[in-house]
Amino acid sequence: MEALRWQGNALCLLDQTLLPARVKWNTYRDYRPVVEDIRRLAVRGAPLIGVAAAYAYALAGLEFHGREDFVLRMDEAKTALWNSRPTAVNLFWALERMEAKRRAVGDDPAALIGEAEDIRRENVAMNEAIGAFGAEVVKAGSRILTHCNAGALATDGIGTALGVIRAAHAQGKVEMVYADETRPLLQGSRLTAYELAADGIPVTVIADNMAASLMGLGKIDLAVVGCDRMAANGDFANKIGTYSVAVNCRYHGVPFYVALPTSSIDMGLADGTGIPIEQRDGRELSFLGETQTAPLEAAVYNPAFDVTPNGLVTGIITEKGVLYPPFSTALAALFPG
Amino acid sequence: MEALRWQGNALCLLDQTLLPARVKWNTYRDYRPVVEDIRRLAVRGAPLIGVAAAYAYALAGLEFHGREDFVLRMDEAKTALWNSRPTAVNLFWALERMEAKRRAVGDDPAALIGEAEDIRRENVAMNEAIGAFGAEVVKAGSRILTHCNAGALATDGIGTALGVIRAAHAQGKVEMVYADETRPLLQGSRLTAYELAADGIPVTVIADNMAASLMGLGKIDLAVVGCDRMAANGDFANKIGTYSVAVNCRYHGVPFYVALPTSSIDMGLADGTGIPIEQRDGRELSFLGETQTAPLEAAVYNPAFDVTPNGLVTGIITEKGVLYPPFSTALAALFPG
Repeated sequence: MEALRWQGNALCLLDQTLLPARVKWNTYRDYRPVVEDIRRLAVRGAPLIGVAAAYAYALAGLEFHGREDFVLRMDEAKTALWNSRPTAVNLFWALERMEAKRRAVGDDPAALIGEAEDIRRENVAMNEAIGAFGAEVVKAGSRILTHCNAGALATDGIGTALGVIRAAHAQGKVEMVYADETRPLLQGSRLTAYELAADGIPVTVIADNMAASLMGLGKIDLAVVGCDRMAANGDFANKIGTYSVAVNCRYHGVPFYVALPTSSIDMGLADGTGIPIEQRDGRELSFLGETQTAPLEAAVYNPAFDVTPNGLVTGIITEKGVLYPPFSTALAALFPG
Repeated sequence: MEALRWQGNALCLLDQTLLPARVKWNTYRDYRPVVEDIRRLAVRGAPLIGVAAAYAYALAGLEFHGREDFVLRMDEAKTALWNSRPTAVNLFWALERMEAKRRAVGDDPAALIGEAEDIRRENVAMNEAIGAFGAEVVKAGSRILTHCNAGALATDGIGTALGVIRAAHAQGKVEMVYADETRPLLQGSRLTAYELAADGIPVTVIADNMAASLMGLGKIDLAVVGCDRMAANGDFANKIGTYSVAVNCRYHGVPFYVALPTSSIDMGLADGTGIPIEQRDGRELSFLGETQTAPLEAAVYNPAFDVTPNGLVTGIITEKGVLYPPFSTALAALFPG
């Protein structure tokens, strides 16, 4: 399953707001609508946002090539992309890397495209490695819970959490995947169920509030989720509701794993309290399409993410291996210096 | 806020599937469409279902009055109403009581209407008493979480869980009510937020998966929910997701109360494992109105209720007082013999 293509000096992105009912690709030759489509979640998922932003920066390189104010315009493009969403760190990581390349090569659009392609290729390879390491923690016959979408549609590879599930499924170890639908934007039912069903992996959609009940009935063996940003101690931000999954896993003795590329780790943050949490429009909760589902007089609280403390995490699955507590030590060893 | 009226020998019920966008009353002179409207949740909430079923039985009494096969027809009506939904016990309690009256008085529709009116009046009074007892456990400045709708729209009185909130608010002790939207049918955002906002009680709608995050941030002081059926040991069934709230309350040290009339207690069940759990159509999760939100290839798991074990309950708020552990003893004392 693809979510991103680069062809003829244009970026093509699958509009993820329309799935599963409609498969529509948008084509971009201008970085500005990419900013808007990251914001409205037409393109989403921390790793994919990073790759898309890298290509969008390359689009800016093509647009401003040869202009006297090239550097100024590239800085504008970087700032606009930087401000599209606040929580996922891959976005900032990818833009810093693209800017470093631009500083090194000057006004050279082909080199910027090449750098974006490198980021993309490395990302795909990281997903494969995450899947391979992660599959080792999955026992035969597992019934696995996941939340939101940390799959091909979020990463442009086999996925992080879903990379683990795909690799474990290839080894015949997955009995069922339970996909939290993931309110308010339903990335679990719309995207995770869609891509797993397309791959012939057994998947059952549940409302977020049903996961605890399944655990209480002994029907969940393992939970694995993705990550938008992890601090140096292993605390991590992921889609709102992840923390509730982690608490329920702890209560029920269910192993809880987070899968991520090391580009999602922000060693500049000591712990999760420093991760900025995006607050989104309350209409995501008070309307379903055109149907009003809450009175206009009621307030709405709609954070896009929550932070799961490292103490609730069984293991951190990265492209370099699976980390176990104490996470501060294990993470520091990944980033010497 | 009203959800039920009896006028001119007809039953009028507010269609709760259309709120908050539309206020529509349906009028019934036939018990059969009441069965159907209980099933499709146009009328819902354990106590209200009991009252509505009592009046529907009275409608059957009017319809079959004077017929030779009166008893046979009344038995048919009772069976149809009995089979409308499986979990809430108030339905069975109310029908047993109506049938006992019918046996006592024979073919006397006015007596059946009178019995339904008695059930209704007692129900309203029980809500008032639940509110008064429950308000005592609410501290000043409380931020209260509730799940689903255990309010006027569920009970025809001030509500059970919302009765507690209304009484505490009248005493100036409620800073904010957080209403879980309650997937899949959104009784929290559509109904609870609607009736609290109408009463001027501050209410904030959240997705079910956000409650844990709020608790982690120290923003929930108390949770109170309703109940569809409680076993003799205090285990209880309530809207799916209640168990997750209870687990999160335990993890975060937040007091967790359940509010119910004693007519929701089924002393014939030793514990919660015996409570039948209604499984509903998967389309409630895979479609939002006409919009498809999950691929047709994915399975859907859609239980309407879950069971919360008594060990997670801080206190049981009834019209006879607040019960504390050990609940088996406290409940047995309410039902001598």
